[in-house]
Parts: sequence; C-alpha cells; structure tokens
Amino acid sequence: MRHINVGLLGMGNIGTGTYKTLEMNKECIARNTGLDITISRILEKDVLRERDVTVDMSQFTQNPDDVLNDPSIGIVIELLGGIEPATSFMLAALRNGKHVVTANKAAVAKNYSQLMKTARDNGVMIRFEAAVGGGIPILNALTSQLLSNKCMEILGILNGTTNYILTQMAQNGLAYEDALKDAQAKGFAEADPTADVEGHDVANKLSILISMSFGERIPPEDIPTVGITGISMADIEKASAEGKKIKLIAQAKRKEGGGVECSVGPMAIPADSPLAGVNNEFNAIYIVGNAVGELMFYGKGAGPLPTGSAVMGDVIEIGLTSAMFR
Amino acid sequence: MRHINVGLLGMGNIGTGTYKTLEMNKECIARNTGLDITISRILEKDVLRERDVTVDMSQFTQNPDDVLNDPSIGIVIELLGGIEPATSFMLAALRNGKHVVTANKAAVAKNYSQLMKTARDNGVMIRFEAAVGGGIPILNALTSQLLSNKCMEILGILNGTTNYILTQMAQNGLAYEDALKDAQAKGFAEADPTADVEGHDVANKLSILISMSFGERIPPEDIPTVGITGISMADIEKASAEGKKIKLIAQAKRKEGGGVECSVGPMAIPADSPLAGVNNEFNAIYIVGNAVGELMFYGKGAGPLPTGSAVMGDVIEIGLTSAMFR
Repeated sequence: MRHINVGLLGMGNIGTGTYKTLEMNKECIARNTGLDITISRILEKDVLRERDVTVDMSQFTQNPDDVLNDPSIGIVIELLGGIEPATSFMLAALRNGKHVVTANKAAVAKNYSQLMKTARDNGVMIRFEAAVGGGIPILNALTSQLLSNKCMEILGILNGTTNYILTQMAQNGLAYEDALKDAQAKGFAEADPTADVEGHDVANKLSILISMSFGERIPPEDIPTVGITGISMADIEKASAEGKKIKLIAQAKRKEGGGVECSVGPMAIPADSPLAGVNNEFNAIYIVGNAVGELMFYGKGAGPLPTGSAVMGDVIEIGLTSAMFR
Repeated sequence: MRHINVGLLGMGNIGTGTYKTLEMNKECIARNTGLDITISRILEKDVLRERDVTVDMSQFTQNPDDVLNDPSIGIVIELLGGIEPATSFMLAALRNGKHVVTANKAAVAKNYSQLMKTARDNGVMIRFEAAVGGGIPILNALTSQLLSNKCMEILGILNGTTNYILTQMAQNGLAYEDALKDAQAKGFAEADPTADVEGHDVANKLSILISMSFGERIPPEDIPTVGITGISMADIEKASAEGKKIKLIAQAKRKEGGGVECSVGPMAIPADSPLAGVNNEFNAIYIVGNAVGELMFYGKGAGPLPTGSAVMGDVIEIGLTSAMFR
C-alpha cells in the first residue's frame, strides 16, 4: 500500500464534493489501486460552514504555505477558482516538486503554456480533467487511449447552464429570461450568469480541449465566441420546424493546410444527431479521430460529486503513474 | 525517443486495420508520446492476400516462436481470434516477459483469471480495450479516471450486428431474416451469425466489463443470455406504440447485499433514454458511478480501423506506463 498526502486549496462546493468522493470511496480506491489517499491539509477561510462531510478542524489552515511548503504533501488540489491567486499557488506547488490537480478552466486556459512548462521543468504532473466536461473523462481519453488517432474534429456541449436554458426554452416553451431564472433557482446558473450565457466559460474549455487534442495553443480570447442571449423563441421554433435543435456548440476542426479553425456559438443541429439528445445540465463531447471514427462522451458537466469524481480520478492517475509514489 | 518493437499474431481484417492505424499515425504518435513504434514481425499464413498497407514480406513468419521468443519484441498483439491457440500464445508471451494486447473477447472472457495472474506474476501488462465496444475507450476509463467511483450499474449495447438488425427492423420495417441478410451483405454480420444473434458475443463482453468495473468474476456461461432471434415485427411495433425501442442490452447491477446481478437480452427502453439513440452498427456503454452519476460512451463497436485504434491505444498506454520502455 502506498500512502499519498494531498493538500486542498479551497473547500467550497467542489472542494466539499472532492472530499466527499474520497470519503465515500477511500476503501474501494485502496483495494483497487493500492493507493491510500488522505487529504491532510486544507486552505480555507470558512471553517464553520455547514458541510456534509467529517473534517477535523486541525486540517484547516489560512496560510497557503502550510500546503505549498509541506514536504509530506505530494499532490496539491487547487479548487479556489479565478485566475489569481490560483495560478501563483499552482506554480509554487509545481516548483516545490508537487503534482497539481485543478478544476480551474479559466486559470488553465489563460496560463496553459506556463503551467505545462513549469510542470515539465520540475518533473511533476499537472492534470485538469474536471476543467472540461465535469465528470466526463474526456481529457484522460485524449491523453492516453486516443493518442493512436489524429484528431480531425470536435463538437462539444460544454456548459450545463446554457444547455439547461436552451432545453427549457425548447421543451417547455419558457422565454429566455424565465428559463434563466429557473436555472438560477435550481442552482444551475450563478447570480451573475455572464461568463456562462456569453460563452466565455465554453471558450476557456474549448481552448483547453484544442491544446489536448490538436496540440495547438489557441487562447480563449482568440476563439470567435457568441453566447445565447440573442436566442429567441422564434429561432427555436424555426429550428424545430426544420427538424433541428439549437445548442451552444464549441467546435474545432483541423484545416486542410494545417492549423485549427474553431468557434463557440449557437448552432441548429439535426434532431437525430447524437448531440441533439443531450439535454438540460448534461454535457457531451463528440470527436472524430482518423482511425476510431465518431466517438461521443456524455455525462454531467458540473456539480460537486461529478467534479469531485474527475478531481479524485486525476489524483489516482498521478498516484498510479508517478515514480514519486512507487 | 524510445523504440518499441511489436510482434503481431494474425493479419486478417483487424490485424490489417491495426497495421494501417500505425502506418497513418506513426509520426504523430512519435511526436505526441516520444514512442517510436514498429510492427517488426507478423505471424500470418496468408502472405499474398491483398492488403491496403505496405508490408515487407520478410516481416511475415509461419512460426509463432519467431514472435514469442524474439528478445527484441516488447509487446505482442494477438489478433488470431478463437480461444486456442490464441490463449496459449498469449500465456507464452507473458511468461517470456512480453506485454500483451488483444482484441479477443472470447479468449479473455474464458481465461480471464489465468491471463491476469500470469501477467502479474511476470511483471507485465495485458490490455484488451478492443475486446469490448471496439474503438470506444471504455476499459481504459474504468481502469484509470473512473477508479474514483464505485460502479453501481452498467447498461450496454455491445454488438453492432444485432443493433444493426434491430435498427433496420424498427426504422425500415424489414423482417428479421431480411435485416440479417442486409447486415451480411454490408459486412456487419458473419455467414454464421450464431454467436452474435444468440447473444454469446455480448455475454463475453459483459463478463469482461463486470470484471473491470465491479471486480467480480462472472464467466460468460453463468450470465443469463437471450438473443434477438425471437424478436418479431409485432414486438417492435408494440414497443414503438409505448414510446419505446427494443435493443439487445447487456446489464449488470450491484446487489444490495453484495455481488452483481446481470443478464443479456432484448429490452424495451424509453425512446428518450440515451441508449435509444444508438443505432445501426454503433455501440454504447452507459455507466452509473456513485460519484460521477450517469456517463455514456458512444462509438463504433467494430471495424478494422476503430478496432485498430483501440489496439494501438493499448500499445501506447503500455509504452507510456511500462518501466520496460523508459
């Protein structure tokens, strides 16, 4: 049995889901992998918040150095969100020889090259399965089994908030504003939904997907991006009359002469295409490889436990493949 | 750059697809993984067969020992099909310290424990992604990222032949016999379709899936199995009138008190469930994990290139994770 101490930066919804995923499955993970994983230190101000897990108060700290400089910690999970101080903390952890796992699409999309290079230079790994498609193990597939393919095309429904709104508009005839309010009431949309409904969240995820599948670096601000705020009931009815559904689609395609063309925006897709059946808060990624042909991965793109599943999956992958834990 | 010599046992349709997958993507694999993979020796009687790839005649041999005992070969790919001599060859390769990759669901389902133990005892790996769901990277997900979950339930459409027949019956009103003839004409069904239409092929795949996801060993002959030969147009019309579709479903579920209940058989599933949209020769695996919730993986369950994609994906995974190639 190999023991791994993990430090956690941030214990909000996703941090709690990650902690709970480990709490639920610690024994079964140990039995199946030989890894005895412990979250030993947690950077979090709000220690008194009601959480559905058992945390020893002595695990909490308000000093990031207690995680980043603790030599007993081999893997740092970053779940603070936002670009700073998250990026600086991840870089510090990597420079201290610690592997990093994060769900932070904004920080990874913005600082992709620097994070990857710092990990490489320090002989450690950085993984971010939870940053794209929540619990769907798409990045893992792209960086293992699917390396036997040249990726030709990707189409993704990568944002649960906007997919929920579009599904409610199409299935229940809700106006955009009412569907947004419904999503907010159900916890699928934030009080300020700008990053979701304007497509910026999807552009971050598509930028990461393109790096992992085409090996090209296209920063999110260079991806032509349109959100769903301009979609009216008339658009949805027109699409429906043509046997189509409107979805917010992230797309990337290999260009003939080299390079990748990509965009984020609402698209009317045939109702019998695999992505058309992806409704409400679900996400899906459709990929075409030059050997495997069409593939689709479908699952929950958000939520504490699906995201916690992806984060802990990355921790396990590092534990199984890193020489540090042999 | 690390060099890996691979030996190939069998160069029929799947072997040729595997060879072609490597031929198409050798440079891109080398660039992305640092692995320089060469198929250096091929056991195959039919050396003159027309193949869509460039093979040097000196690579062929009719003597299995030329592959199994060649110290320069690190990985043996078994694509002979059938239980023997395939199993004996795989065991010999493992005992000689070679990793094994196979697409042979019948041999793996029948001799699962012996193959896994022999690999473990000899410090090498055996991988068989192509044996379940063709090009869909489901076994890789179950043995890496999804180890963070306890698997609760699996439902799969795991046979392209029967799914093609049922789709043609439902969509085009073909009688079973006519749909079978159509599948045979299109190369989706064999001249003797028994193993497919009676469900035995699916039982082999489900047995492997159960081992990899629930950690329980249930031999295929212990899985209650019904095929599709008894499905009439009246059954399909009745299901359709109830808003359902008939699919040949492999299912496995964790029992309350421990253990797994499982079966293979035709099932009427709601037309709006994710599996209902899986048509013709496509396969899909729907999984529920206790953290990630619902996931579905969709893609081509057969064919030379999708299967070749999975086989070469396994070779790459072994190359990236085995100490032998560091």
